Amino acid sequence: MKLTQPKLNRFLFNSLLVLIVTTSSIYAQKKPNIIVFLVDDMGWQDTSLPFWTQKTPLNARYHTPNMERLAKEGMKFTNAYATPVCTPSRVSMISGMNAAHHKVTNWTSPQLNVSSDNPDEQFSPANWNYTGLSPKAGIPNTIHATAYPQLLKDAGYFTIHVGKAHWASVGTPGASPYNLGFIVNIAGHAAGHPQSYFAADYYGNKPGKNSMQSVPDLEEYYGSETFLTEALTQEAMKTMEGPIRNKQPFYLNLAHYAVHDPLQADPRFYQKYIDKGLDPQEAKYAALLEGMDKSLGDIMDYLKAKQVDKNTIIMFMSDNGGLSLTPPRGGAIHTQNLPLKAGKGSINEGGIREPMLVKWPGVVKAGTTANQYVIIEDFFPTILEMAGLKNYRTIQELDGKSMVSILNNPDEQDNERVLIWHTPNKWIAKDGPGINYKSAIRKGDWKMIYNMRDGSKQLYNLKSDIGELEDLALSNPERIKELSDLLAAKLRKWEAPMPMLKSTGKPVAMP
Amino acid sequence: MKLTQPKLNRFLFNSLLVLIVTTSSIYAQKKPNIIVFLVDDMGWQDTSLPFWTQKTPLNARYHTPNMERLAKEGMKFTNAYATPVCTPSRVSMISGMNAAHHKVTNWTSPQLNVSSDNPDEQFSPANWNYTGLSPKAGIPNTIHATAYPQLLKDAGYFTIHVGKAHWASVGTPGASPYNLGFIVNIAGHAAGHPQSYFAADYYGNKPGKNSMQSVPDLEEYYGSETFLTEALTQEAMKTMEGPIRNKQPFYLNLAHYAVHDPLQADPRFYQKYIDKGLDPQEAKYAALLEGMDKSLGDIMDYLKAKQVDKNTIIMFMSDNGGLSLTPPRGGAIHTQNLPLKAGKGSINEGGIREPMLVKWPGVVKAGTTANQYVIIEDFFPTILEMAGLKNYRTIQELDGKSMVSILNNPDEQDNERVLIWHTPNKWIAKDGPGINYKSAIRKGDWKMIYNMRDGSKQLYNLKSDIGELEDLALSNPERIKELSDLLAAKLRKWEAPMPMLKSTGKPVAMP
Repeated sequence: MKLTQPKLNRFLFNSLLVLIVTTSSIYAQKKPNIIVFLVDDMGWQDTSLPFWTQKTPLNARYHTPNMERLAKEGMKFTNAYATPVCTPSRVSMISGMNAAHHKVTNWTSPQLNVSSDNPDEQFSPANWNYTGLSPKAGIPNTIHATAYPQLLKDAGYFTIHVGKAHWASVGTPGASPYNLGFIVNIAGHAAGHPQSYFAADYYGNKPGKNSMQSVPDLEEYYGSETFLTEALTQEAMKTMEGPIRNKQPFYLNLAHYAVHDPLQADPRFYQKYIDKGLDPQEAKYAALLEGMDKSLGDIMDYLKAKQVDKNTIIMFMSDNGGLSLTPPRGGAIHTQNLPLKAGKGSINEGGIREPMLVKWPGVVKAGTTANQYVIIEDFFPTILEMAGLKNYRTIQELDGKSMVSILNNPDEQDNERVLIWHTPNKWIAKDGPGINYKSAIRKGDWKMIYNMRDGSKQLYNLKSDIGELEDLALSNPERIKELSDLLAAKLRKWEAPMPMLKSTGKPVAMP
Repeated sequence: MKLTQPKLNRFLFNSLLVLIVTTSSIYAQKKPNIIVFLVDDMGWQDTSLPFWTQKTPLNARYHTPNMERLAKEGMKFTNAYATPVCTPSRVSMISGMNAAHHKVTNWTSPQLNVSSDNPDEQFSPANWNYTGLSPKAGIPNTIHATAYPQLLKDAGYFTIHVGKAHWASVGTPGASPYNLGFIVNIAGHAAGHPQSYFAADYYGNKPGKNSMQSVPDLEEYYGSETFLTEALTQEAMKTMEGPIRNKQPFYLNLAHYAVHDPLQADPRFYQKYIDKGLDPQEAKYAALLEGMDKSLGDIMDYLKAKQVDKNTIIMFMSDNGGLSLTPPRGGAIHTQNLPLKAGKGSINEGGIREPMLVKWPGVVKAGTTANQYVIIEDFFPTILEMAGLKNYRTIQELDGKSMVSILNNPDEQDNERVLIWHTPNKWIAKDGPGINYKSAIRKGDWKMIYNMRDGSKQLYNLKSDIGELEDLALSNPERIKELSDLLAAKLRKWEAPMPMLKSTGKPVAMP
């Protein structure tokens, strides 16, 4: 090849350009790291950070300084929702689908082919996906869907899962986070809670004493003083080190087992709450919460020390409302989330309203608050948009809506959006407020609940009545009609599972 | 910046060079992938591939077509050694140290602070590292050393461990392969054998029935027909997919639990060996072997299908000799490796001589045989040389010697090299041939065994007497002196642990 001087210049320059372009994605890490910090069974007010217009007595009870710190550095969502129980929320998050659509409407048993539904006199069970999520087709009683960690991994992310998984039963691919797009999995499996938070108990792996809830992969801590929450935090930090050093963007799903039952005393914080006058069960719960909050702070400190805090998004979320059953909680039943009604398992606000925070350096303005209502399936498109993924392909049709525009503008308000909750299941043996066989819809400030037992409907205005105390159904027949139609249309479109009336052998009518 | 034309040329050209150099390691995958396929407790003749000058009855008994295929594509080592039991071999491999040097001279109990040594009337226990290997300083009763997967990871390899780990006890960092440089760990932990090979048994994780040997991380197979060997193979293939797609070199440590006790019938192959006339225990053993061999073939097929077989090294090895205790083995005690003496746990050839194969496309000539004696600590420098690593830093001083020159030239012969074995331990309650309180040295064709019980020495010529039947000590006093001095010098240099005489409270004398 003989080149004149200008041609040589151009050749060298073009070659340089090509190389710069092809290498920039690797050498200049532009894609942000993303951490989802997911807490289990944490109620909306189980934090010293108020998510309402006012500080509540519960906010005064708990101490979560690192959530306060995260809120100062990011955006607080005052109307964030999940589903009433954990597997539906986790499947919604990772699939981008509403629970009525993916049909995993109750928690999945770790054991294969065991439905967690309780028997009922009036109803036979709905045809729900009681085996959970599957990345492969043809697994009975599962929703076959694409998990976003798979898309992130395919796009070059180093994808890490640490902690509770609970996406599917054993004996199916979805039981293993490795099949859902995670490169590394530590401690995640088919179970929904830990047998024990204590290293002295081997986290449930003592010979002859195991259960489906024995936490895997943490043998190095056995016999030490390391509380489960701390062990998971250390594992997460250790695992982030590789991609940080290699300048590879990472996605971390740090899904704490805390604060799920068994309520065991995190010794680092328990006495403090006893001294505050809490009864032992509630002191254990509060200590689990503060241990979780310390983990959040440790992760934030770690990112700063590694100088990646400015390129790392942190999304904080809980998977359902705080448990309001006694025992294991202290006090009277269904009082643990007041002024919200009921708790975990309920379609009332106590069961579904969540503390949510997003820190996104350079995008989210620090210390802001968004009041738009959002729901857990929104995480899917949001995270992929954060990662810069476009035109990705999924098996399923998505229901979630990206929250990125809200993150850019916290004042954005869309009161036409419709959110749906659907539990055609018998979660516990005895019905309670919003518990067992309910659907709900929110549009604007209005929320309607449909009771499958008798077809009755309740209507609440959440702006004026967050406790869902004043049923406005009788005085708002048109709104009831509108919301019923919207809810029924969605449930029909999704072919949502419904319980079967034993008396007729037919499914319960749509609202 | 104002540049003249020649200066601009040089600037552009230099920039181009810098970019080419810095990117070439990522864009053109030059580093080979490396797989160590490690079998547990497999004897030297437990294969249809003969590793001796002649085919033996045991070679005729077993069927391992994929080992034959690997030998045809690579190099067979007829004098490859490990240590008599598994943890010492595994620590030697990953640390590059002789067992007398790293002092993990017996298998490590999964339980912390439990020495696996049996009590003895004559001796108090030697001060050996019964907790195993540690990547961190300051852990009692461990050897603090750098593991080569850490160096490979630091050099850009995607490092994968699948299967048995058994490097250290629970409660210490070495219990987790994640702390030894592996990016992914599936099913590796502190235990040395599986509670069960059967998915129907949840590999030992059935509620209330677990032990320290319950195999972690395989919940997706629970209740299926997937034999453990097959599950590990599938996991290995799944995990290789990421680095293959990303053109990142990978290191895979596929360390099968097979063929370690419990001898359970791999249903895919069991009946075949019953039909051949083997007793049920031996048929189970043979089926475990063939299941392992199928895994090897599946991995080779996978590499070919993914078109990376030409850039992937496969090293096949076992960690100690075949078990010769009955039960669980069938037949009479210590006959299972004949003509080799004894078996696992013994310093005689039956306990330490291994089937070893290396396929290295483009380097190792297909179908070759090397007769040079090599030992398991040689894997460390060999693998790092294969990966192109030079001037790497380790905490420990290495004892292993790279086998790359042999791989380049199978006729290389070094009869001056000295190999050492050292077991100052009581492995089983009753002494047997070469079992409990022995050291050994090989130089050229000569092997001397030192019996710590009474200071006696045996001398064998392995070329003419592979069965160690004719003790030539009396007629070769000079050779005994030479080998004793060499052995003692090594043991002194390494400060090798020695048992303590109860009668005097002093350690056993060096040979």
